[in-house]
Amino acid sequence: MTSGPIVLLSDFGLQDAFVGTMKGVITGIAPQCRVVDLTHGIPRGDVHRAAYYLWQAAPFFPEQSIFVAVVDPGVGTSRRALGVAWPEFTCIAPDNGLLTYLLTHAQPSLAVELDARAFQLEEQSGTFHGRDVFAPVAAHLASGTSLAEMGTPVEKLKLLPLPSMTVGADGNLRGQILLADHFGNLITSMGLWQTQGENLVLDPWLPDCRSVEFDRMKVRLRLPNGITIPLSTTFGDVDPGELVAYIGSSGLIEIGVNQGNAAEMLGLTTSQEIRLIRKG
Amino acid sequence: MTSGPIVLLSDFGLQDAFVGTMKGVITGIAPQCRVVDLTHGIPRGDVHRAAYYLWQAAPFFPEQSIFVAVVDPGVGTSRRALGVAWPEFTCIAPDNGLLTYLLTHAQPSLAVELDARAFQLEEQSGTFHGRDVFAPVAAHLASGTSLAEMGTPVEKLKLLPLPSMTVGADGNLRGQILLADHFGNLITSMGLWQTQGENLVLDPWLPDCRSVEFDRMKVRLRLPNGITIPLSTTFGDVDPGELVAYIGSSGLIEIGVNQGNAAEMLGLTTSQEIRLIRKG
Amino acid sequence: MTSGPIVLLSDFGLQDAFVGTMKGVITGIAPQCRVVDLTHGIPRGDVHRAAYYLWQAAPFFPEQSIFVAVVDPGVGTSRRALGVAWPEFTCIAPDNGLLTYLLTHAQPSLAVELDARAFQLEEQSGTFHGRDVFAPVAAHLASGTSLAEMGTPVEKLKLLPLPSMTVGADGNLRGQILLADHFGNLITSMGLWQTQGENLVLDPWLPDCRSVEFDRMKVRLRLPNGITIPLSTTFGDVDPGELVAYIGSSGLIEIGVNQGNAAEMLGLTTSQEIRLIRKG
Repeated sequence: MTSGPIVLLSDFGLQDAFVGTMKGVITGIAPQCRVVDLTHGIPRGDVHRAAYYLWQAAPFFPEQSIFVAVVDPGVGTSRRALGVAWPEFTCIAPDNGLLTYLLTHAQPSLAVELDARAFQLEEQSGTFHGRDVFAPVAAHLASGTSLAEMGTPVEKLKLLPLPSMTVGADGNLRGQILLADHFGNLITSMGLWQTQGENLVLDPWLPDCRSVEFDRMKVRLRLPNGITIPLSTTFGDVDPGELVAYIGSSGLIEIGVNQGNAAEMLGLTTSQEIRLIRKG
Repeated sequence: MTSGPIVLLSDFGLQDAFVGTMKGVITGIAPQCRVVDLTHGIPRGDVHRAAYYLWQAAPFFPEQSIFVAVVDPGVGTSRRALGVAWPEFTCIAPDNGLLTYLLTHAQPSLAVELDARAFQLEEQSGTFHGRDVFAPVAAHLASGTSLAEMGTPVEKLKLLPLPSMTVGADGNLRGQILLADHFGNLITSMGLWQTQGENLVLDPWLPDCRSVEFDRMKVRLRLPNGITIPLSTTFGDVDPGELVAYIGSSGLIEIGVNQGNAAEMLGLTTSQEIRLIRKG
Repeated sequence: MTSGPIVLLSDFGLQDAFVGTMKGVITGIAPQCRVVDLTHGIPRGDVHRAAYYLWQAAPFFPEQSIFVAVVDPGVGTSRRALGVAWPEFTCIAPDNGLLTYLLTHAQPSLAVELDARAFQLEEQSGTFHGRDVFAPVAAHLASGTSLAEMGTPVEKLKLLPLPSMTVGADGNLRGQILLADHFGNLITSMGLWQTQGENLVLDPWLPDCRSVEFDRMKVRLRLPNGITIPLSTTFGDVDPGELVAYIGSSGLIEIGVNQGNAAEMLGLTTSQEIRLIRKG
């Protein structure tokens, strides 16, 4: 049996041998399985950011991919180790909210606590379950062992609070800043969007938000500092150094600076409020 | 049909999931194709540095390698997306000068604008063509689709200004600093070199420069601050902390500090003039 | 013949194209061989740290793995290039102490100086033997050439001074700090450990240290600043921001801070003394 790739995400960084060692374990068990790094640059313990990346990236991977997410401040404590399967892919992760976005969008077909020690390293440290638990489980899965054999079914997985996005009585949209990327672009909770001619139709990706329609030409984004900017298509629509709002590759509205760094320029941080307002 | 590896180069960094997501797309289309990271540490928008690395690295990759270069400040604007084939390899890149060095050294056999949408993702963002255009095109190429099917032939690709290197009436060589690497070694435009006994013969890699011969023992490099240093073979030829000039792995003259950082020590920057002079 | 993976470790960083170029060379010679990055984040010239990582990681890789370690401040000088084989794996590295920990733990079956130029690139630079010597040798090894064909047998490989760990007359253990990892956890020389019920039994990994037994509940770690802390199992055993000592995934005692950075908090550096003392 062949699976898709094993896809690794962690906050281990690339300075030490943590990630390489996980790959050693995987290669020993599943030598034919491709291993892909999603990123190991998650800030230490930033479970929310990792959860967001998992959700963003999953649709771009082939079916039967196995995601191994190790942002695990509770490693070695009684927090559970999980294997969670959806029809398209499987995730191996600690039960600390890493699957929040994925679980919000689709019901898994099976979730187990990884308590079958036969599929893990015999000697286990208290601090590196990426190597001792998650990597070998993923590799056995890639080699054909079923997830059901790996553990005991569980319910009620841990969920992080979701970001907010609401449509007000005035039809305006309130959202918030989720995170900044490597380029300093600020990703907001505002989306997802479908384009219908001149109009943008909100395809609400967060619960408790209804769909709503905006005329793309008659909409402005209001930042916490009072600045308002129109909705463009890409960085190059504005001059270098200028602020630009656009529907990002995430499907969410993002705020950037052409050839610059919006996070630095604006000094905005995660969870600050953003509004999408209709013009006069 | 099997191709060489798909080789990725970008300014995306490794903190976000950009690179991993491109690999997801590639793996879905061309699951057997090897993917190699050339580097994702290009400073944001530094098309020149990326162009230099592509030229330097290409000869060390197997035939039929597919290079995907995404340093793309004009993403989403009308800048063209290119596929350019040489007999030995193919490059997929925006038309912004990324292929300057490669084009200067060898005439491509085919260049197309990537306008056949069938080989790209159906939904395309305005800001992440690495994922939506370049990755799927490379993967289809690796899977056997010909470049000619992917787009429309084009001429006149964008070229960056080349660095300067000239031989003066006195037979001395004037060049400039191209860039500093991770170790702080300064790579200059002075090369390439063939060794003939005691002599170094300039094999001019830049247009408008003629060949010239130097006695290796009777030559000195003059830096912009007036310091002159002899030409050594490697770092260890000088004491720790000392400046050293040598013909680098690039084939170009480089300036380093044994166990130190020349860029920091000298405070030199890109495009400053360097001279190679004959001793008395 | 198939080998295990080629495993790369260096101080090249990921900003330049050094690592990618080595993979190009490997892919050209051994297109089917898997290549794994152990890490390229070794601080420049830190041979000791690289030697430690090699020793730590090797047991987690499959048999017949080929480790290529390039932390090579003496590149281009007369320092030898080595191929060293143990029954389980082979290392390709400069002769500068990189194999110190591995050699201390097990006698190699063969060590050669890599002087057979047929298995290296024809043109060799004075500064990048990772590309010109080590990568092609590893790839030929992965393709079935025997190590014996690659060079001339040598004895007396260079060894670095080992860290210290001694058991005093009082039965207390003196060790030292080896290094700090990405999270700021301080790894000490104190180990390795076997657990026997409540007791910890020292399985001395350094020569000249005898085995000794501690009651886990009655032991404290004394830091250079006089602070003493008990031995816990994992970060989560203490409150966020608190110091914690534990037996790390290395098998050695480590010092961390739950959700914090011990190296920063304590200001401790490599080689400072640590004691493990018995309580009253």
